[in-house]
Amino acid sequence: MNHAQANTLRIRSVGIGTYRENIIFMHVECPICRAEGFSALTRVVVHHRDRSIVATLNVVYSGLIAHNEAGLSVEAMERLAVKEGDEITVFHLKPISSLSKVRAKIYGRELTDSDFGEIVQDLVAGHYSNIELAAFVTACSGDNLTVHEVIGLTRAMISASEKIAWGSGIMLDKHSVGGLPGNRTTPVIVSIVAAAGLNIPKTSSRAITSPAGTADTVATMTQASLSIEQIKRVVEKENGCMVWGGAVKLSPADDILISIEKSLDIDSAGQMVASVLSKKAAAGSTHVLIDIPVGETAKVRSQEEALKLQYVFKAVAEEVGLHVEIAITDGAQPVGRGIGPALEALDVLSVLRNEQGAPADLREKSIHLAGILLELSGKYSIGTGKDIAAGILDSGKALDKFMSICRAQGGFTEPVLARYNYEVRANADGTVRSVDNRKLARIAKLAGAPRSPGAGILFHSPLGKKIRKGGVLYTIYADTTGELEYARTYAASINEVILLQP
Amino acid sequence: MNHAQANTLRIRSVGIGTYRENIIFMHVECPICRAEGFSALTRVVVHHRDRSIVATLNVVYSGLIAHNEAGLSVEAMERLAVKEGDEITVFHLKPISSLSKVRAKIYGRELTDSDFGEIVQDLVAGHYSNIELAAFVTACSGDNLTVHEVIGLTRAMISASEKIAWGSGIMLDKHSVGGLPGNRTTPVIVSIVAAAGLNIPKTSSRAITSPAGTADTVATMTQASLSIEQIKRVVEKENGCMVWGGAVKLSPADDILISIEKSLDIDSAGQMVASVLSKKAAAGSTHVLIDIPVGETAKVRSQEEALKLQYVFKAVAEEVGLHVEIAITDGAQPVGRGIGPALEALDVLSVLRNEQGAPADLREKSIHLAGILLELSGKYSIGTGKDIAAGILDSGKALDKFMSICRAQGGFTEPVLARYNYEVRANADGTVRSVDNRKLARIAKLAGAPRSPGAGILFHSPLGKKIRKGGVLYTIYADTTGELEYARTYAASINEVILLQP
Repeated sequence: MNHAQANTLRIRSVGIGTYRENIIFMHVECPICRAEGFSALTRVVVHHRDRSIVATLNVVYSGLIAHNEAGLSVEAMERLAVKEGDEITVFHLKPISSLSKVRAKIYGRELTDSDFGEIVQDLVAGHYSNIELAAFVTACSGDNLTVHEVIGLTRAMISASEKIAWGSGIMLDKHSVGGLPGNRTTPVIVSIVAAAGLNIPKTSSRAITSPAGTADTVATMTQASLSIEQIKRVVEKENGCMVWGGAVKLSPADDILISIEKSLDIDSAGQMVASVLSKKAAAGSTHVLIDIPVGETAKVRSQEEALKLQYVFKAVAEEVGLHVEIAITDGAQPVGRGIGPALEALDVLSVLRNEQGAPADLREKSIHLAGILLELSGKYSIGTGKDIAAGILDSGKALDKFMSICRAQGGFTEPVLARYNYEVRANADGTVRSVDNRKLARIAKLAGAPRSPGAGILFHSPLGKKIRKGGVLYTIYADTTGELEYARTYAASINEVILLQP
Repeated sequence: MNHAQANTLRIRSVGIGTYRENIIFMHVECPICRAEGFSALTRVVVHHRDRSIVATLNVVYSGLIAHNEAGLSVEAMERLAVKEGDEITVFHLKPISSLSKVRAKIYGRELTDSDFGEIVQDLVAGHYSNIELAAFVTACSGDNLTVHEVIGLTRAMISASEKIAWGSGIMLDKHSVGGLPGNRTTPVIVSIVAAAGLNIPKTSSRAITSPAGTADTVATMTQASLSIEQIKRVVEKENGCMVWGGAVKLSPADDILISIEKSLDIDSAGQMVASVLSKKAAAGSTHVLIDIPVGETAKVRSQEEALKLQYVFKAVAEEVGLHVEIAITDGAQPVGRGIGPALEALDVLSVLRNEQGAPADLREKSIHLAGILLELSGKYSIGTGKDIAAGILDSGKALDKFMSICRAQGGFTEPVLARYNYEVRANADGTVRSVDNRKLARIAKLAGAPRSPGAGILFHSPLGKKIRKGGVLYTIYADTTGELEYARTYAASINEVILLQP
């Protein structure tokens, strides 16, 4: 553009954090605002040297910045790699053509592979505002994506990813679709499978709508944010790893979409399949086991829904060159006793250490899934996986492997619980008849999980257990009295998180 | 809450405008942030005296505000009615229960009247973030609302409105579903109908996705932002008015939804019906004429779609007690020559003044629709409306009435065109075969309309006109060279806004 000169402003550091959306602060009397006709909520392109970002304009009426200055949000300064005093140029944002595809989707048209390619490219480049991202996520939620569209979205997300190349050979992986509090089998499974000499370079996500993701739990025991080079060194040495996929930008598109899903507290089947499989493909996995817990208050509520999801997973996996195996499991209640990063880590350690009080359900499920992976590798014959997995766990080899992996990732630390707790007690005698996973998860989140790693719930009332009046149903942990109070008030305001039958 | 004391901060005016979304700026080391576990993008409740708002937290890392201070965006300070130095208290936002209805809608469930009631109440109270608003608007877009849902949404929006009470008698009104550039019949129709002694208290909206709404056009000639009391005085004196509905908060829910639709550049049938009829009901109208222009590049593209829309309008109107008449009109090309607030105003004045070069199509359509309204009132018999309307216009009585209404609204001023213009010329001889309304509208918007009232397009190439090579197809008007350049570049980059046949 030939009027670049006139569009130059000097950066003033304002020190305001606005998270993912880039904000530019320009003075209402700024000559560019006036000449170019910018107004509040206008979106503009900001250039500095060879970088450019799209930012939303907030108009400044005070002396915070001068007429020839611009402020950028903290994150936007990082993305543009500028510091105070640098010169930037500001332009009108050209119409983003991929938004017409988003509108087409809103109006019910089926999108093609190339439509998704354009959309994903633009959103990774930061061209979409929060409002536009929310519209895309919503339009693709519920049952709104066909299998073809899920394939298109998955391919687009793989294209926008950094990939890990492992050379030849089988790379195992597993994923749980979630919705079940606790259920932290991954660290146990990785330890068993890696101890068996198989490759399992596990990348996990942080929580989307749950009180903890595997990466959150791992981060309470060892370093989970590793570079691709570091991951490769750990896996070369130990056969397995347990790291946060977000740190290596395995799927930058997914990170953006997930942050919006989190704000909206929605989670859709098509987007989930695309998210999971694009990350697995980018991570270089070849054989993936997907755990689908089914329960009335789990994410997947019926066998029928699970079979539908299985179909989509298999259809999309085939198109993108992944071998997928599905395990449909019991999702009627939490697996393990902890809900929240550190609380779940304590369960994991208890199982690995073969402690007497270790949660039997977590142990059983981990052995079951690890067994399937052992067989899936082709190294162990069908029917033998489970016993071999149990043997590795019982012998202490899984624990040794876990500790070796933690050391390779930067050292092991014991997880630490939050400082405050509150015990929720039964107000009558009874036997546990049902457990509301969603309400438990919400209470754990209100208590601060996963942001506060030590926060969450310790669950004492599995199905079928007899509980006396005054007996503890679950304990809420929080790092601040504000959060403890908040979670406790919510728990008191709702009915039947744990249903007791007299 | 009993920890109010601890949650007190002192307001520091930061002078940052963030438009509709309330933003609170708190220091990263602020004791409340730390004690309550707030983090970036957290939403909080802010109290001052008897008012409270919900705001999104931006974290400040600089000395912009002190640890015991909070900044609020300019608009948030107005909404909370605070000034620098005032004390506010800040709390966690309780889960917004109506959001579970939005999620249900996203997952494909049909919402009830009471669901819409809860949602609309919360969004009018400012409890929804931009992301949540975008999700609701998207979930209700396309063909996603059933007629029952449109009725529910309309009722909820009426409940959330300030209503104008007119006593007894017929109150006429008209509305165009739009999508056609120009088409500024309203000021002509109001003048004719009011001159005939009938009541037509017309409230209009600003542009949603178009280069001008009627209120934008009116504002170039007279005061369009009147209070309900002022409107009543104008209508008592002159029988009609032409005012901006947004100024009187006739439908605050609609104003919020429309700002999101505008950002997304989407417009859905269900939301449109709810928007139009809720405003008409709130404005106290009894008999409403709806103009549905049909054309390949208009909002409504086929006769079939128009009939479907007619059905929804009639079904919903009946439920909320309005008498609705539909006129399906020709939407193949712009009506009139101007596209943009002032340019359309010049067309209107030209028709009212019976100038020789006045656009015949705008005159014809205004007479046609005014005639229907005259008959709809019951005062004139069927078949006579059109001639009576033409007579009032030809006699100059409509112009007199228009000027009287303008005087009553605060005085008349001539509309002023933007300073810069650029003529787009034909590059071969030919006859105009088709006109792309959408591309014309986009060019006008890129030139600054409706934000710059003088900006837009003067259209010289109606269907069937023979144009010589080098002849002017249309002229772009803009207030700044940046915008003129922007619109011109876009126009040059696309094909066939005006299709000529040799």
